Amino acid sequence: MQLGMIGLGRMGASLVRRLTKDGHHCVVYDVIPAAVKKVAGRGVRGSASIDELIAKLAKPRAVWVMVPAGVAGKTIEKLAACMDAGDIIIDGGNSYYRDDVLRAKTLKKSGIHYVDCGTSGGVFGLERGYCLMIGGEKRIVKHLDPIFRSIAPGVTVAPRTPGKQGTPSPAEHGYLHCGPTGAGHFVKMVHNGIEYGLMAAYAEGLNILRNANAGKRGRETDAETAPLRDAEYYQYDLDLPQITEVWRRGSVIGSWLLDLTASSLLNDPRLEDYAGRVSDSGEGRWTIAAALDEAVPVPVLSAALYERFSSRDGADFANRVLSAMRKQFGGHDEKKKGER
Amino acid sequence: MQLGMIGLGRMGASLVRRLTKDGHHCVVYDVIPAAVKKVAGRGVRGSASIDELIAKLAKPRAVWVMVPAGVAGKTIEKLAACMDAGDIIIDGGNSYYRDDVLRAKTLKKSGIHYVDCGTSGGVFGLERGYCLMIGGEKRIVKHLDPIFRSIAPGVTVAPRTPGKQGTPSPAEHGYLHCGPTGAGHFVKMVHNGIEYGLMAAYAEGLNILRNANAGKRGRETDAETAPLRDAEYYQYDLDLPQITEVWRRGSVIGSWLLDLTASSLLNDPRLEDYAGRVSDSGEGRWTIAAALDEAVPVPVLSAALYERFSSRDGADFANRVLSAMRKQFGGHDEKKKGER
Amino acid sequence: MQLGMIGLGRMGASLVRRLTKDGHHCVVYDVIPAAVKKVAGRGVRGSASIDELIAKLAKPRAVWVMVPAGVAGKTIEKLAACMDAGDIIIDGGNSYYRDDVLRAKTLKKSGIHYVDCGTSGGVFGLERGYCLMIGGEKRIVKHLDPIFRSIAPGVTVAPRTPGKQGTPSPAEHGYLHCGPTGAGHFVKMVHNGIEYGLMAAYAEGLNILRNANAGKRGRETDAETAPLRDAEYYQYDLDLPQITEVWRRGSVIGSWLLDLTASSLLNDPRLEDYAGRVSDSGEGRWTIAAALDEAVPVPVLSAALYERFSSRDGADFANRVLSAMRKQFGGHDEKKKGER
Amino acid sequence: MQLGMIGLGRMGASLVRRLTKDGHHCVVYDVIPAAVKKVAGRGVRGSASIDELIAKLAKPRAVWVMVPAGVAGKTIEKLAACMDAGDIIIDGGNSYYRDDVLRAKTLKKSGIHYVDCGTSGGVFGLERGYCLMIGGEKRIVKHLDPIFRSIAPGVTVAPRTPGKQGTPSPAEHGYLHCGPTGAGHFVKMVHNGIEYGLMAAYAEGLNILRNANAGKRGRETDAETAPLRDAEYYQYDLDLPQITEVWRRGSVIGSWLLDLTASSLLNDPRLEDYAGRVSDSGEGRWTIAAALDEAVPVPVLSAALYERFSSRDGADFANRVLSAMRKQFGGHDEKKKGER
Repeated sequence: MQLGMIGLGRMGASLVRRLTKDGHHCVVYDVIPAAVKKVAGRGVRGSASIDELIAKLAKPRAVWVMVPAGVAGKTIEKLAACMDAGDIIIDGGNSYYRDDVLRAKTLKKSGIHYVDCGTSGGVFGLERGYCLMIGGEKRIVKHLDPIFRSIAPGVTVAPRTPGKQGTPSPAEHGYLHCGPTGAGHFVKMVHNGIEYGLMAAYAEGLNILRNANAGKRGRETDAETAPLRDAEYYQYDLDLPQITEVWRRGSVIGSWLLDLTASSLLNDPRLEDYAGRVSDSGEGRWTIAAALDEAVPVPVLSAALYERFSSRDGADFANRVLSAMRKQFGGHDEKKKGER
Repeated sequence: MQLGMIGLGRMGASLVRRLTKDGHHCVVYDVIPAAVKKVAGRGVRGSASIDELIAKLAKPRAVWVMVPAGVAGKTIEKLAACMDAGDIIIDGGNSYYRDDVLRAKTLKKSGIHYVDCGTSGGVFGLERGYCLMIGGEKRIVKHLDPIFRSIAPGVTVAPRTPGKQGTPSPAEHGYLHCGPTGAGHFVKMVHNGIEYGLMAAYAEGLNILRNANAGKRGRETDAETAPLRDAEYYQYDLDLPQITEVWRRGSVIGSWLLDLTASSLLNDPRLEDYAGRVSDSGEGRWTIAAALDEAVPVPVLSAALYERFSSRDGADFANRVLSAMRKQFGGHDEKKKGER
Repeated sequence: MQLGMIGLGRMGASLVRRLTKDGHHCVVYDVIPAAVKKVAGRGVRGSASIDELIAKLAKPRAVWVMVPAGVAGKTIEKLAACMDAGDIIIDGGNSYYRDDVLRAKTLKKSGIHYVDCGTSGGVFGLERGYCLMIGGEKRIVKHLDPIFRSIAPGVTVAPRTPGKQGTPSPAEHGYLHCGPTGAGHFVKMVHNGIEYGLMAAYAEGLNILRNANAGKRGRETDAETAPLRDAEYYQYDLDLPQITEVWRRGSVIGSWLLDLTASSLLNDPRLEDYAGRVSDSGEGRWTIAAALDEAVPVPVLSAALYERFSSRDGADFANRVLSAMRKQFGGHDEKKKGER
Repeated sequence: MQLGMIGLGRMGASLVRRLTKDGHHCVVYDVIPAAVKKVAGRGVRGSASIDELIAKLAKPRAVWVMVPAGVAGKTIEKLAACMDAGDIIIDGGNSYYRDDVLRAKTLKKSGIHYVDCGTSGGVFGLERGYCLMIGGEKRIVKHLDPIFRSIAPGVTVAPRTPGKQGTPSPAEHGYLHCGPTGAGHFVKMVHNGIEYGLMAAYAEGLNILRNANAGKRGRETDAETAPLRDAEYYQYDLDLPQITEVWRRGSVIGSWLLDLTASSLLNDPRLEDYAGRVSDSGEGRWTIAAALDEAVPVPVLSAALYERFSSRDGADFANRVLSAMRKQFGGHDEKKKGER
């Protein structure tokens, strides 16, 4: 079938490739003309503007928007202005699910259908396929089924869950209609919240392993510093590339994120290419906000997010408050950089 | 080669099976005679006591101890008392790595070699193989290589990490000599710490999804209760079995633990078989203790452990302190069970 | 000066008393007529409706609203409908500061001034005075200064901060104009967030002390249970009422919350009057939400809030997910209630 | 009565002053002769060695050791070697309570009594008095009562807890015999754990207030960065010195730590004197370790400690792991220093 694609970054371009490989036709647009040029070709027609893209699509049109969350709203507005009743907009980016609800309501007035589609897979999606979490009207989502099926990874990439029988469900292909508008991005949001937690669990564990030789380093003995009581138990120089590798087979903690970590450590065992300033894209925060509204405790997911804030110096003032207090009640001076 | 096995529970029995399938010979013992009987057969000779087991093994003997952490110490003592210089004890259980260091020192006096081997894989290890994290003397670990190789999952169970070349390393087979005595259990300990974190990340995320219909439930409005401001955004009845299934393909958070979760939810979508009292086997605590010694922050791993403590009513008195304070300064009465 | 007061619960009634003691005149109203009756008397005129209250006040009127957060919005709407340009509404409750911003904007159209005033002090405020955190227009807040001064505790209740000189500032009296509309409730919101953190710190610490006799209790030894390694170090039966008492003098952790805790423990050393279901009134959640927006890490404040969620069974489903996973990979059965 | 004092740092010197003011006689020693000279005078005899100190004391001798935790063990050993049966050693420092238990056992063989005394009060103790948490034999602690009473703050420094009647108990004077050997330092340890939690609660809250103007700062809009959705609600420039001052009167969060914080902020409103590298002296770690042994959840106390670890770059490697993962699956590059 035919699909418009707006946004030809890493993910947009890969989606187009997966679609055309399955025989779908795409009409594409990006604010950067070179991106359009790069993608255009067999089964793909480029366009120089949203108007042009709309003109090249047959009604009822379906257009997938794959742009950064910060500009999704405006892009969709512009797009909708060119569309007709019966057309469909799919937001495949990381929009806040509440924005979906508001947008769908607005678009409904013009008879335009809105589908929110959380898309997971990162840079590997081109070959691995993308996991799709979809929200919107049943009939519309059904109509787009061939599109979703081509983008999704397919049944074979994972062993069947014991107990599953008969024709594989869409979920077993790697795409799922989660519920009404916003449900797709809600599930994707929580997916990302979990992702933060998983990543942090590995990172903290590897940090412990990395410092298993703490007993070899000297430590000062003064009133300020907690002495390491049991230095003899911290004499291990552990090989993290090998350890992450061995965990990939047979362990309880095997995962795709571990596979990637093993790969990173193989190429850069001490990760000296990184400074450790870790961004967050907003979905982790929204996940916590949802938990707050639901009164669901999420200490792990929160801690994972806060580590990122701290890595970007977000705790600086709080730490200075602590130092000021310690100076006040105990006369303690701060240690210098490098001392621990 | 020949191996003694003490402890024929779930894991011990499976190890024996994997070994004999590869042509190794096992002499086995368990405190429960029926367990011995069940395992004995082709390639496996049972014994009614440790003495008998020792008698049936050729020197230098190698005996794998696979018993609960609580009795490992005594079992190893008893075993050592029957052994000769040059013999080898492998502790495959979840011993504290510091006990390994102490035991190895003691055994060394009698010329007995001690190998600590963290063994991950759970009840699926029989078919999947076990991930082995090994500590001890280089020469002794080398000597036991055929044993480890048979127990480990083997190269094919995971795609090769990009960049790896040549003959697969032991780590790529699923076993690794991590370092001197204790290093194996140290790495296994952190493995379990990470496991707690991963599990908690999924559990918290699923809890948020489960409560995505919070807006449908009424909530009281009084000075005590935070009203749900945005009930219209919490109207989703999400299908957790389907969601965990869809995440298994193409998503960033795919893992073996997720596979198992999808399987659990398929059979019992609301998990009504469980009350939610979650045990911990000690390794999570030791992981935190190591982080404390190393001054490595582990908020995620700690939070995961504390959730287990709380699930077993460990926070009860603290919560009562909070209620008492609230009563004091605000005159607040506690809500009844069932109210939130 | 003259002030209207709507809401005569614990706090509203106390405010009126502090005001009349200083010679101010109050016109009061509450949805419960008996509450009006109870407060009316010297310097206090009751009224049976908001209309009547408005009629009894001289222009420009100033009316303090002291009602639960859940009904503040509607009360203020009703009140504003009866008011004239130049009148002032003070919201002294726990409103969300964003609602302040919206309300002030709406009221401005009718020329009505809005002041948000976070009020801390609890049931002890009548005698101790209330700490006031105020937001709104400079001129209006200035106009109300005599009111705030009478409600606040006054300079003498705390020793002067070293370095302060000259005439005590309003902050030293216990009230502060924090900034434009919303600033008062923003500061009060964070005040409550901190309160949760302080309370949790004491509660957790006391819980550790309470369990310092853990070594005296037996613990099972099986594969499921972490054995207590060092039972000999947990043999203390500590006297919590005495310990909280001793901390009140000279220690670093002295505070008003500690005073209250000592008082609670004196009367009920094991806190058996409480079940430990701890409510939260919303301000803790908003505090976290603000931190998320600001990218400020708040692990302590979050953990404190999540403990309350957990105390009200908010973690139940998450815990069942953990149990289901443990059953899957390890065949572990849950412990029964009472077992730890 | 007569007391020996070893260690004349901030705290040791102040103890001596409080004791002599009450008419006690002290014999003092410090490794730094100048410290001895400074303290010696009316009621205080200096000595140049431990031997000399011992010689100057009448039997049964009582010697208070007030040295950094790292050297306490050796000092006590040396001291004990010079003592006779019936003599008493008081460890007033921050020793680990388990060391108390071991030391007391050893000293008992020589008939020497050992008293552990947690001493809280910081640099203000000279005037405020010290809060004393004491462990040891009943008879010996009783014998030292006059010493403890002189060091403690006394009844008048806090209002009496409602319900207390009759002659004030020692706890109301500010000292308490908590239980057998180690109980004093156990209670002091938890005291410090709570202290960390309280400090962190204030620090996090103040950090939120500090960043309440986040909406005024620009923020980039790209796929990497979570945009601030509601910039209009983060326009407050709050005055932290004034806010901490106002909280000192009538609020729920008043405390001595808050008094100190207000004082710090008055002198240095942006705390530019500090870099925010926050040490920990070990007691926080031991507190967590005790909670782990007792299976008591302490998310707040742990988070507080971990913030200190992070402030000293303890999370660096973990953060680099996160960056490496993000690069792998999403092709994300790290933000530069200064970008958030």
